[in-house]
Amino acid sequence: MKKYKHIAFLTDFGLKDNFVGVMKGVLYNINPKINIIDITNNISAQNIIESSFLLENSYKYFPAKTIFLCVVDPGVGSERAVIIIKHKKYLFIAPDNGLLSFLLKDNPKIFKLNIPNKYISLPVSNTFHGRDIFAPAAGLLSKGMNINKIATSINTIKKLSFPGIVKNRDTLIGKIIYIDRFGNCISNITSPEFYNFVKNKNYYIKIKNVRIEKVSTYYQIKEKYGVIFNSFNRLEVFVPNNSAKNLLKIETYENIKVKLTGTR
Amino acid sequence: MKKYKHIAFLTDFGLKDNFVGVMKGVLYNINPKINIIDITNNISAQNIIESSFLLENSYKYFPAKTIFLCVVDPGVGSERAVIIIKHKKYLFIAPDNGLLSFLLKDNPKIFKLNIPNKYISLPVSNTFHGRDIFAPAAGLLSKGMNINKIATSINTIKKLSFPGIVKNRDTLIGKIIYIDRFGNCISNITSPEFYNFVKNKNYYIKIKNVRIEKVSTYYQIKEKYGVIFNSFNRLEVFVPNNSAKNLLKIETYENIKVKLTGTR
Amino acid sequence: MKKYKHIAFLTDFGLKDNFVGVMKGVLYNINPKINIIDITNNISAQNIIESSFLLENSYKYFPAKTIFLCVVDPGVGSERAVIIIKHKKYLFIAPDNGLLSFLLKDNPKIFKLNIPNKYISLPVSNTFHGRDIFAPAAGLLSKGMNINKIATSINTIKKLSFPGIVKNRDTLIGKIIYIDRFGNCISNITSPEFYNFVKNKNYYIKIKNVRIEKVSTYYQIKEKYGVIFNSFNRLEVFVPNNSAKNLLKIETYENIKVKLTGTR
Repeated sequence: MKKYKHIAFLTDFGLKDNFVGVMKGVLYNINPKINIIDITNNISAQNIIESSFLLENSYKYFPAKTIFLCVVDPGVGSERAVIIIKHKKYLFIAPDNGLLSFLLKDNPKIFKLNIPNKYISLPVSNTFHGRDIFAPAAGLLSKGMNINKIATSINTIKKLSFPGIVKNRDTLIGKIIYIDRFGNCISNITSPEFYNFVKNKNYYIKIKNVRIEKVSTYYQIKEKYGVIFNSFNRLEVFVPNNSAKNLLKIETYENIKVKLTGTR
Repeated sequence: MKKYKHIAFLTDFGLKDNFVGVMKGVLYNINPKINIIDITNNISAQNIIESSFLLENSYKYFPAKTIFLCVVDPGVGSERAVIIIKHKKYLFIAPDNGLLSFLLKDNPKIFKLNIPNKYISLPVSNTFHGRDIFAPAAGLLSKGMNINKIATSINTIKKLSFPGIVKNRDTLIGKIIYIDRFGNCISNITSPEFYNFVKNKNYYIKIKNVRIEKVSTYYQIKEKYGVIFNSFNRLEVFVPNNSAKNLLKIETYENIKVKLTGTR
Repeated sequence: MKKYKHIAFLTDFGLKDNFVGVMKGVLYNINPKINIIDITNNISAQNIIESSFLLENSYKYFPAKTIFLCVVDPGVGSERAVIIIKHKKYLFIAPDNGLLSFLLKDNPKIFKLNIPNKYISLPVSNTFHGRDIFAPAAGLLSKGMNINKIATSINTIKKLSFPGIVKNRDTLIGKIIYIDRFGNCISNITSPEFYNFVKNKNYYIKIKNVRIEKVSTYYQIKEKYGVIFNSFNRLEVFVPNNSAKNLLKIETYENIKVKLTGTR
């Protein structure tokens, strides 16, 4: 019997309404000793790509025996499944909408939630499964309930189609996939992807037709704008002590181009 | 001596300032073992109707031995009382401004807070009773202090005049009383109220002069807009994966009309 | 070996991204028993004056054995130091940018963080020291690690140049330094400063060329606007149940003038 100590929330419920508070109430009702940690509850409404990106860049910093409770669920009330993934020292619960598909590369154990009525409060609403299904499932699992009592093993889940990188001989085009509160614009280009492409060649980087210098700390920059590999190892456009989003008018899905210009 | 394990916050203090954090500091100072849960601290400034609505639709999901600490207090510094209500397995603390009057139907025990100076830090400010009065009271009660040491029994409290429903033979007119972060527009029409009125008759529902189909999950909808009984059993106007508030330009207090059209 | 029970967060990371959640993950990884309290994570981006003001007006309400983890860090990635201050029953950690200089008047013990590599996850990013340096340091200190193992004693820190008060024989001019969520506009004029200046003289108070009456509770006011000494003993411009910021179009750094008009 494996117990979990922490439940980490990742939702798009916001902090204006009572959704997150009510889910926590339900959880403490089932397991008064659980420790709840908010990753964020301010995912843009129903934005699965944003959820997946933030979760992928967060989970490994959490302690062993954390359950990640991910409720970004545009399909609530439809036939979409709820899935549970056992991944190393963690458990992940989310709707089957692609949010967790980044975990597939590690071949984790996958389950489909099939929680018997005796474990939940009836009737289940059609609009708030976070309260009626996700929180009870997480609460029971945190107390050590055998996962096979509420879920059945499955082989695969829905895959998220993440904005991809387009590459030819001398050009790599990525996309801005997340903009943080400071207006830093974060792309889908990781550090290994970048250096494998660039190798020992000269290159420049452009976004919105502006050439931007790559630096390794915010403080090296001489120009107004810069790009940097950020703390999650993603190429990020920034403006020191200001917002790249506002100054360059960048939105998510904007292209960012790396162009080779010859051998260094 | 009855101890409380959880304190649930419902305030309009927001999360920008230090108000909520300071109240939590005061509470942990008095009772380091207490578990604090935020229902929400983002009630619209001084909006008692919103507070009352969210609390009524939240409290029963919380564990026994929860104290609900409700500080939405436009009357701070005036002569308004602070009241405490013992209601089944819970305790509620709030200004006497109607926020808790929805509990009266269950004939709970009501008290007026009259906390002796020896239990609080002096001087008490005239502008932040959340810190100087509410938090100390909740902290002491959570540790098992007898309520009669800091409060006296009273018979009644201020009643909130909640937007009502207007009904005649073939028309029921309710009002939108809350709009959530997704732009779902929630009315004061509950499921029993609706079905008692409609019975076996045909009807249509209109808001802003638009006829809107009632469905039972977001996914049944064929039109752009729909109404549904939501997870709190209220008639709610929604737009799938979009904001009804924005698309229909609905504000709180907008009318929503149910019109009977004959026997089915 | 002195252990700490609580860690209070004061950051400008906001609640939209995963920064605060990830820092908490790191902390619970190091010390699963720690209690984390948010003062606020919504400091305006990189605003040191706001941080310092809110911390100064918050810390003394917290229990003994609290570590204040303050990450408002426009200098991240530069050579700026991270400092630790032992102050009575508390510990404070922040970048050396003036945020903590208000503590100097009490002659606390000051340290410069110099955390050995063996205590942190490498590589350290250049953009998120909250995760890579501050949280590990706070976590280790909370568990009772001797501060000399990760920091060295120093004599002084960077001082914050706070907006000052200008005074002559019959005029005192302060500045609005913080505006809260209600639109209350809080000045740098404290109650002792004010009464030492005014003594037994008559005076009026003006902001944006409007004369404003001083009252002692929000409820005494007869005019549209008022000033009051608030719960942190600062002269504050308010509008009952409304926003002084909006109605008077006040921004931070607006002047507020106290003018003597003769003996009372």
